[in-house]
Amino acid sequence: MKKLLNDPATVVVDALRGMAAAHPELRVDLEHRVVVRADAPSQGRVGLVSGGGSGHEPLHAGFVGPGMLDAACAGEVFTSPVPDQILAATTAVDGGAGVLHIVKNYTGDVMNFEMAAEFAADNGTEVACVVIDDDVAVQDSTWTAGRRGVGATLVVEKIAGAAAAQGRPLAEVAQLARRVNDEGRSMGMALTSCTVPAVGHPTFDLAENQMEIGIGIHGEPGRRRVPLASAAEVAAMLVEPILADRDFAGADGVLLFVNGMGATPLMELYLMYDQVSALLDRAGVRVARSLVGSYVTSLDMAGCSVTVVGLDDRLIGLWDAPVCTPALRWGA
Amino acid sequence: MKKLLNDPATVVVDALRGMAAAHPELRVDLEHRVVVRADAPSQGRVGLVSGGGSGHEPLHAGFVGPGMLDAACAGEVFTSPVPDQILAATTAVDGGAGVLHIVKNYTGDVMNFEMAAEFAADNGTEVACVVIDDDVAVQDSTWTAGRRGVGATLVVEKIAGAAAAQGRPLAEVAQLARRVNDEGRSMGMALTSCTVPAVGHPTFDLAENQMEIGIGIHGEPGRRRVPLASAAEVAAMLVEPILADRDFAGADGVLLFVNGMGATPLMELYLMYDQVSALLDRAGVRVARSLVGSYVTSLDMAGCSVTVVGLDDRLIGLWDAPVCTPALRWGA
Repeated sequence: MKKLLNDPATVVVDALRGMAAAHPELRVDLEHRVVVRADAPSQGRVGLVSGGGSGHEPLHAGFVGPGMLDAACAGEVFTSPVPDQILAATTAVDGGAGVLHIVKNYTGDVMNFEMAAEFAADNGTEVACVVIDDDVAVQDSTWTAGRRGVGATLVVEKIAGAAAAQGRPLAEVAQLARRVNDEGRSMGMALTSCTVPAVGHPTFDLAENQMEIGIGIHGEPGRRRVPLASAAEVAAMLVEPILADRDFAGADGVLLFVNGMGATPLMELYLMYDQVSALLDRAGVRVARSLVGSYVTSLDMAGCSVTVVGLDDRLIGLWDAPVCTPALRWGA
Repeated sequence: MKKLLNDPATVVVDALRGMAAAHPELRVDLEHRVVVRADAPSQGRVGLVSGGGSGHEPLHAGFVGPGMLDAACAGEVFTSPVPDQILAATTAVDGGAGVLHIVKNYTGDVMNFEMAAEFAADNGTEVACVVIDDDVAVQDSTWTAGRRGVGATLVVEKIAGAAAAQGRPLAEVAQLARRVNDEGRSMGMALTSCTVPAVGHPTFDLAENQMEIGIGIHGEPGRRRVPLASAAEVAAMLVEPILADRDFAGADGVLLFVNGMGATPLMELYLMYDQVSALLDRAGVRVARSLVGSYVTSLDMAGCSVTVVGLDDRLIGLWDAPVCTPALRWGA
């Protein structure tokens, strides 16, 4: 295993220590492994909490800051955060207007966020929850019942964060978050496996001449293994199931997000963006906004995913609104 | 070779087509492989041009935009741009106040930028040039005489770009750029080789239990190969030669930039940031500004580099000034 680390057992907290050192605008609770805006809570404003297993960086802690999340909980690598962590985050960002939990649809995450929400309610904090399930690849997987939550999570966090920053009430922020999830579809692929530090060897074997289509962000199986193919063919294998699942031709435009899995160079992601946007254009889908980069990753996996989210003028305005986080920053 | 591409021979232009599609605020000249701000030239303002071989993305085209570069020239992978490209970029951004060339110290780059500057001068464009040579690893390499230009290039582009945006004259922008280079020191390491698309196999062999210290961003040899070590030991191997080369304890503070080589997860970069910043702290070097991410890459190489740049109040102000590019964006 070739990784930059000291001890596989402490990799999450060691990385969080680096986040704390690099970002004085964040408050990092190393005991609970929770990253919070240093100025939290914002009195009278809805607080946003997300989190999940580590290994998907910059998701989620890299999206904590004005205009996006108020706190993120970091579980062990590919392991759900525990209710205590989530409760600590929820309490830290409760400014009296309620807290929204943004949860990727994995069984452990959903269960632990639910438990934390109950504890928080007992303490007098109103909590709403939106579950993200945008991955069209598989209906059920080793990690969850129903579709998995992947790339659309970032988009939900950005748009809900902008609405919260505008002072919208909890019910409206939650409804917007659900709408973005309903409008979002994703599909991913892997050229190589990832390696979990504490395991020390690749999660799965993929021959030199093979790739996996429909892979999950934990290295869980996708739809099928196929021979290595060109970027044009890969783009078609990702876009077709997305468009088969939802008709975006009617939307005012879409956000096209081409995401790297962690070890894929930006040059290849831009090359893929060209292929994917050409396919959408041919299908009559107009791209209104774009994002290209490694934002929802799977440790050191090589590969990419495509996320398409249908937009309208309001969602575009919220996407464009200022954001100031370690990994996503504009207008501020 | 596992890469997302169609044809190794067209990978650069195929990726540039993606940049054009994703970033309508940029004008991409596919014939010359030059990326220019869509609103160039800015009349009466110094224009900034950089460039070099492709494979280091987001460097350089990802730094084109308000507050940073006006244009970037993309050579073939790890191959200098030719004078025609550089001349096209220089002409495109000449707003009458002269043009600064920011050139990494590789023999071909320096020679071709020099030739382009002569052609541009013949056409009536005043050109100044700053050569970046911040890599303390080796004095000469297969690619250049003298030290190589690596991570400090980004910092020079940012700070010179801010000065140009403030309307400072060419001589002053060039002098600032040289000062940042003088203040900057870098050192890198690799866990794995990169693979050039047109070659199809790794540039060098590195055993499963080995890493290379002092590596260049083209996979050229570093100082030595050593057994795999902990992040703490790697941090020491990178920081010690930097501090041995320059005393930063006297500076008002430094910019600490922990950079990924392309295939290294962000979690590992933050973990390295923690180690490196602790070593600087122990050496009495105060970190005033931070940057963590994969910005000056070497295709799909796993590894990292550390760049330290001595700052004063003016340089901090220019670093903090608004920037709006695909890869670096704040305050705008």
